[in-house]
Amino acid sequence: MRLQNDSVWNALTLIGDRWTFLVLREAFFGVRRFDQIQRNLGIARNILTDRLRQLEASEIVERRLYQSNPERFEYRLTEKGLDLYPVLLALMRWGDKWTVGEKGVPLLLYHKPCGSQITPSVICTHCGLEIKAREVYYEDGPGAISS
Amino acid sequence: MRLQNDSVWNALTLIGDRWTFLVLREAFFGVRRFDQIQRNLGIARNILTDRLRQLEASEIVERRLYQSNPERFEYRLTEKGLDLYPVLLALMRWGDKWTVGEKGVPLLLYHKPCGSQITPSVICTHCGLEIKAREVYYEDGPGAISS
Repeated sequence: MRLQNDSVWNALTLIGDRWTFLVLREAFFGVRRFDQIQRNLGIARNILTDRLRQLEASEIVERRLYQSNPERFEYRLTEKGLDLYPVLLALMRWGDKWTVGEKGVPLLLYHKPCGSQITPSVICTHCGLEIKAREVYYEDGPGAISS
Repeated sequence: MRLQNDSVWNALTLIGDRWTFLVLREAFFGVRRFDQIQRNLGIARNILTDRLRQLEASEIVERRLYQSNPERFEYRLTEKGLDLYPVLLALMRWGDKWTVGEKGVPLLLYHKPCGSQITPSVICTHCGLEIKAREVYYEDGPGAISS
């Protein structure tokens, strides 16, 4: 039996909120300053303050002073935060496929190493095949809580 | 400028809620019946009813009659829903890496085609390299709204 403390649950405890995801999206686009995030998202300032505090407490972003008089901070992704990029890519790919109208996708991603437009794919690092839901089976791991 | 209607925003409009994600997780584990989802997640019945209705309206799950007297329905992932699996995998991988204690991961995934334990990776289908946040650049796509 899968319990509430599995890794999906844990991950969503930290980022399972639409605004939190969108703040992360801005961070991946290099938007690091409160006012600019606030403008880009049209988010209420108190909500943004709250979400940034949570992200900082979770060590997903860190606050850095970039101006001292008056004090101004920017928010940068930590290694833990940068590691969320595959989640964002997977989400964007799904949105591109299923939620976009006739006009086409709103944003194009290009891969610097090969120069081509990115179509992300989630593969098994062992065999290189794309992972499909029906081709996976599960077992309790060492951290499973017996029910 | 990235706007509110990009694919991440759109995707989160449909699934950007912790309970919605967790209901999807159950669906991927083959849990399709209201009472069992409710028990596994410890979710309030009215919230589960609401989330399942939203997922049905978004054509991510579909309701099927499995018993007629009394009428009983189960919820199955549509093709659009099954296509969310990479998002779940990416999220689980991140949770396994960053939110798991000393005991180890709670759940092990195995890949039927190769028989090995799964370590998912998001790659560029063109060059096969893992996609890193700092190796991607962006351009407006055809569906971009000029600001």
